[in-house]
Amino acid sequence: MSTPSLQPSLALLADLYELSMAAGYFRHGLADREAVFHLTFRRHPFGGDFTVAAGLAPAVEWLQSLRFLPEDLAYLEGLGRFDREFLDHLADLSIRLDVDAVPEGERVSPNTPILRVRGPLLQAQIIETGLLNLVNFQTLIATKAARVVEAAGDGAVLEFGLRRAQGVDGGLAASRAAYLGGCAATSNVLAGKLYGIPVSGTMAHSWVMAFPEEERAFEAWAEVAEQNTLFLVDTYDTLEGVRTAVRVGRRLREAGRELSGVRLDSGDLVALSRETRQLLDEAGFAEAKVVASGDLDEYEIARLRASGARIDLWGVGTRLVTASDDPSLSGVYKLGALRDEDGEWKAREKVSDDPEKKSQGGILQVRRYEDGDGFRDQVYDERDGAPEGGRDLLEPVLRRGELVAPLPTLEQARTRATRPTKS
Amino acid sequence: MSTPSLQPSLALLADLYELSMAAGYFRHGLADREAVFHLTFRRHPFGGDFTVAAGLAPAVEWLQSLRFLPEDLAYLEGLGRFDREFLDHLADLSIRLDVDAVPEGERVSPNTPILRVRGPLLQAQIIETGLLNLVNFQTLIATKAARVVEAAGDGAVLEFGLRRAQGVDGGLAASRAAYLGGCAATSNVLAGKLYGIPVSGTMAHSWVMAFPEEERAFEAWAEVAEQNTLFLVDTYDTLEGVRTAVRVGRRLREAGRELSGVRLDSGDLVALSRETRQLLDEAGFAEAKVVASGDLDEYEIARLRASGARIDLWGVGTRLVTASDDPSLSGVYKLGALRDEDGEWKAREKVSDDPEKKSQGGILQVRRYEDGDGFRDQVYDERDGAPEGGRDLLEPVLRRGELVAPLPTLEQARTRATRPTKS
Repeated sequence: MSTPSLQPSLALLADLYELSMAAGYFRHGLADREAVFHLTFRRHPFGGDFTVAAGLAPAVEWLQSLRFLPEDLAYLEGLGRFDREFLDHLADLSIRLDVDAVPEGERVSPNTPILRVRGPLLQAQIIETGLLNLVNFQTLIATKAARVVEAAGDGAVLEFGLRRAQGVDGGLAASRAAYLGGCAATSNVLAGKLYGIPVSGTMAHSWVMAFPEEERAFEAWAEVAEQNTLFLVDTYDTLEGVRTAVRVGRRLREAGRELSGVRLDSGDLVALSRETRQLLDEAGFAEAKVVASGDLDEYEIARLRASGARIDLWGVGTRLVTASDDPSLSGVYKLGALRDEDGEWKAREKVSDDPEKKSQGGILQVRRYEDGDGFRDQVYDERDGAPEGGRDLLEPVLRRGELVAPLPTLEQARTRATRPTKS
Repeated sequence: MSTPSLQPSLALLADLYELSMAAGYFRHGLADREAVFHLTFRRHPFGGDFTVAAGLAPAVEWLQSLRFLPEDLAYLEGLGRFDREFLDHLADLSIRLDVDAVPEGERVSPNTPILRVRGPLLQAQIIETGLLNLVNFQTLIATKAARVVEAAGDGAVLEFGLRRAQGVDGGLAASRAAYLGGCAATSNVLAGKLYGIPVSGTMAHSWVMAFPEEERAFEAWAEVAEQNTLFLVDTYDTLEGVRTAVRVGRRLREAGRELSGVRLDSGDLVALSRETRQLLDEAGFAEAKVVASGDLDEYEIARLRASGARIDLWGVGTRLVTASDDPSLSGVYKLGALRDEDGEWKAREKVSDDPEKKSQGGILQVRRYEDGDGFRDQVYDERDGAPEGGRDLLEPVLRRGELVAPLPTLEQARTRATRPTKS
């Protein structure tokens, strides 16, 4: 068995039926028939009123690197479902699609394309699952992060979720999207390395427990940590821990250094943060920060703030990176139009008794009308010509598989996501 | 930016504070002090009464391959938090820990160690986050899968979750754990290749929409799909779709082939499955299967079965792979004992006002007492000697980083997970 995250190829990041359909299109001469697919989502997550688009850069990177390696083809051949000619076609395949999409960090509307794929039917089909996986999850977490950051007001939000994230990449992708959505830093070192996200963190209870006494543990930390003198105070008794931090802080000050702050990780955070703030202020450490962590999300942060908690920094983990109250985005990828044998475009629509499961056909573009207070999106079929005013939301990203222009950086996407709200 | 899943090294799969603490232990001469950590979880997920352990094999593979590569060290150096001597120590590090653990597929109890690490404090500390990530998520999903499979009774459960999974590995790891927990197959081709899991799937709505008429789409599928003549019937009108499938099925039968079945993906699955079954039976297709999919989980499957739905196979996606009603396992990793300067073991316990957040100190083992009806687990400190009767649940896995014996295969773990319940 090999570790998923060490795999050199992700061409097989697909549901089997994508490849079965691809084989069918190939056999019926439809592989190169030009098609248009739209990626939409059905409703704002978390019962909220906005969604922050994310995942485009990883999706583009995946598309551009997509190759069926000999080991992939050998595996597919072993399934006994695919003939040689089709497998040879896959062996030569590289993605030559046109992609138009909303930039990462943009707020987007339900049932409105956020990404459009145009090109050979076979290619547009086999990328369905991977594309949805990458865009659905990052969009979900960027949106969750934006909600948490909004709830925290002026207090920075640090993402601490890796240990209970949904798999290795459930953590990595979440750290990227959480930063994009407005978090200030992550505890995840690999995400820091891969994405250039600021990393932060202090100590665990095990550090405090590794020393005979809490005070010795804090001192030992201060001897090593230089500026990062932020002490975890709830291993034994929280307020005693704060008093211990104050004693160590006084000695630091005598040595020309400063106490960064304390972290509370359990208990009644309203009462404890107020008492902690008072202890720190009375001891002359008005600049020392109070960091809180432990089962936080936007609702709990809002409740704590409304209840008078005195917290400067928020460490948010599990509930952010798993989007625990609504852990999936309802993204779908539907065929919108297909050329017929004569080269004429035919719109394609899925019918359903459930209005949520209908899809709109055509070659769709989104016209955004902004005013001071927000925006309104109108979906139109490009074949009918553009409506008056506004601007098109889907921007050219790939043409025949090649980048039209460099994508915005993660920092640029984050800036877009965190600019003053219009909704 | 590079794709996480293409990374060659996962040594940085850690919260920053693990490395900060490691640097501190190193500086204070504690790096090689012998320590014991226990991985426990606080409560059964999903409000249930059992938990299926999973994730050990991926965790062991990660531990054995853990190396700090030059690029990792360059990144850490660039953070300006770590000195040269410590980074050199990491450069030479390979994991030489003892690990004892519950085999994958075993049912386990809250607040009872399921994995124990013993060895140098620095090594045991830096693996905390990665170990929790791998074990928490796989255990969560194996447990969810076992619940879904139990609800489905004699009907096989197919895992279809990749498109809305939490990242690439949120999908891959979930497919592995879902199979371990009792699912019959996955749609995830990469998981099939990596883990040897059976793969399954038919067609999407886009296939049906790519042809001028549904009947032509089914025929075209049958021309390509050999045995896999299972038609998705809800693109336009579900019962019309079933009638179309019957017509195509009759022609298949004339050609000496058989209709595999139909898939329902929307609408009132109770009414539709009953009418579908009747249409199939009346047409002489009593062997054709009815497959259902769409927002299923153990509760919905139980409701459908109790309401008289006639469904043979269950395609379960998002709610399984995201464990949507409880999307994280409450696993923690706590220091249990540490040798002092004189080589004496000292138990270490975290105190907390919250009884859930207390940890038990010692060098812990679990004694399991089984009878015909179930089991009872008793935690004991190995230094106090073993209790009478029963058997030890934590088995030797690694000694100084080397496997004591090959781990059970995924199939063996699945067999263990799906044997008749004792709880």
